[in-house]
Amino acid sequence: MKIIRVHTKSRPSSVCCGAGALDEAINFLQGAQVFIVTDSNVFRLYQTLLAERFPQASVCVLPAGERHKNRRSLFRILDEMLGAQLHRSSVVVALGGGVIGDMAGLAAAVYMRGTRLIQIPTTLLAQVDSSVGGKTAIDYRGVKNMVGAFYQPERVFCDPLFLQTLPNREIRCGLGEIIKTAVLDPQVKDLVVQNFTRLFDFAFLQDLAAECVRFKAHIVERDETETSGLRKCLNLGHTTGHALELLCGRRSHGEYVLIGMWLESKIAEAEGVCSREYAEQIRAMIRLVLPRIPCFANAAEGLQFALLDKKNTSQGMVSMILPKAEGEYVEYVLPAERYGEYLKLLEGEQR
Amino acid sequence: MKIIRVHTKSRPSSVCCGAGALDEAINFLQGAQVFIVTDSNVFRLYQTLLAERFPQASVCVLPAGERHKNRRSLFRILDEMLGAQLHRSSVVVALGGGVIGDMAGLAAAVYMRGTRLIQIPTTLLAQVDSSVGGKTAIDYRGVKNMVGAFYQPERVFCDPLFLQTLPNREIRCGLGEIIKTAVLDPQVKDLVVQNFTRLFDFAFLQDLAAECVRFKAHIVERDETETSGLRKCLNLGHTTGHALELLCGRRSHGEYVLIGMWLESKIAEAEGVCSREYAEQIRAMIRLVLPRIPCFANAAEGLQFALLDKKNTSQGMVSMILPKAEGEYVEYVLPAERYGEYLKLLEGEQR
Repeated sequence: MKIIRVHTKSRPSSVCCGAGALDEAINFLQGAQVFIVTDSNVFRLYQTLLAERFPQASVCVLPAGERHKNRRSLFRILDEMLGAQLHRSSVVVALGGGVIGDMAGLAAAVYMRGTRLIQIPTTLLAQVDSSVGGKTAIDYRGVKNMVGAFYQPERVFCDPLFLQTLPNREIRCGLGEIIKTAVLDPQVKDLVVQNFTRLFDFAFLQDLAAECVRFKAHIVERDETETSGLRKCLNLGHTTGHALELLCGRRSHGEYVLIGMWLESKIAEAEGVCSREYAEQIRAMIRLVLPRIPCFANAAEGLQFALLDKKNTSQGMVSMILPKAEGEYVEYVLPAERYGEYLKLLEGEQR
Repeated sequence: MKIIRVHTKSRPSSVCCGAGALDEAINFLQGAQVFIVTDSNVFRLYQTLLAERFPQASVCVLPAGERHKNRRSLFRILDEMLGAQLHRSSVVVALGGGVIGDMAGLAAAVYMRGTRLIQIPTTLLAQVDSSVGGKTAIDYRGVKNMVGAFYQPERVFCDPLFLQTLPNREIRCGLGEIIKTAVLDPQVKDLVVQNFTRLFDFAFLQDLAAECVRFKAHIVERDETETSGLRKCLNLGHTTGHALELLCGRRSHGEYVLIGMWLESKIAEAEGVCSREYAEQIRAMIRLVLPRIPCFANAAEGLQFALLDKKNTSQGMVSMILPKAEGEYVEYVLPAERYGEYLKLLEGEQR
């Protein structure tokens, strides 16, 4: 088991990765009033485990799915917290994927101006990415993460136990963010490249997840609230990935990030930001998880979604994080029109 | 003009007190996208000033009054922020009393996980107390400040200009918290005692307000999120005051705090926590603002409200902050029954 400390200014946090992490969580929660937030999928799979391991806890079960990451669910959690008479020293446990982590985290952040919070992520994506760093939010009026807070959990417990019930699609989704991290961080890259045959092996994924957490913790420590620009590097692949996700929305978030990185490696190469050789290396890593980049007959329409995203745009320009060389990246700004041309690369077959 | 720095861990803040503070605010906001949140009372009085001094700003006008400090108003602010296309570097300006400060502060805390925030408090109470320290909240399901956040404003600008339009009731309300601060802090006490004839004189109030802010900043710096217990001292008079406020609700918050302190000085004396002489000194200061402590025929019923307040109670005990000696105070716990007996002191006439 690995312990990764996250030295954020607001509150020190730590992430416990590996087999036995759930037992650690149970130890940590001894004596506290515990309030578990989860979704109907996780609850169905782990109802017995919850009853056995957390016999005293209140459990709030929300409907599963991103479309429930809204104001209604947030206030339902708060209502149930009130009903359970939680106080500030009670502990909210977010048990689920990124959606549950985001909503339970926000509820913990605002209930009585903040209760204690721990995250027990159950998806690979949440274990390597969303549970670490303190971002919490709900979607509102069609804007992703419109209402939220930076609120660090006291502890994150990533137990590979939960990965065993994940559908393959969810594993690929998490691998998307892992490959992104590999492009950003040479240590993760070496681990991926040297063990590329073991990417779908849970024992290895557990080590890989811990390395991804170490990298993310390092970034979050230096830019907790996304103000210095450093944390932006984590958005590699996301400008395009997110636009395609909004345009099509059938694949998982992680796959769209991979497709986004594929296109952005092409852009980096064409714009002279990185060498052809390095861009090819990136695309080879992407293919480890996504052997064939799918065709998007209407990819150029993704431009409108990229332009709608306030994070990336100002006055007809689209900004994105581009890979430069091993462990190096830059924020790069393109005129919307030129970016629209690049999007067309996703429309054809030959690549 | 006095500048008081507040060195909180989450974000450094500073408070600018005195004539000209509004001009400082306008200078500070140069070049920023400004979104003003205010209420219908303040807007009616200062509409022209706003149009002249903040010609570019968006203004969100909420209905006045504590009963509007709710979820509906919060989401109305967020909707208008979205409508005005605010981004994280836009500045929310809370222009009003404590209710506006609390709601605009919370909206700023959660919009896109946090925009910039400044406070321009327009009541004496907000200038000496609520605008400083980063507490934001709305009431929810009948619980005061149920949903909120600790979110420090970058700057607070306290301009005595706004005090001139305050009704007398509002001045007395602010003086309630000032007298509370005088009991906690010897410097504020000396200023009050040496200038007791000038308590309703705006020029003096301005200096007094700055001293109260200095004291509060000192407390908030050492216990920003109310975890070490230190910040609790600011609740002097509030256990009883708040219970009476819920029971009767006709007077201002500050007056209830004074009445609460009056009773709690009696309790401190009877329980041997402070000397009779010191308790008399406190009551003399209270009389400067509230010459006659009113009778509450049903005061003992306040016990139920004190017991409902999770902050003060556990298992049939009521806790409160009691004065001990000059600049000293203790957290004191009484069995509910004995506290109920003390409440009866407020039912009689002779004191």
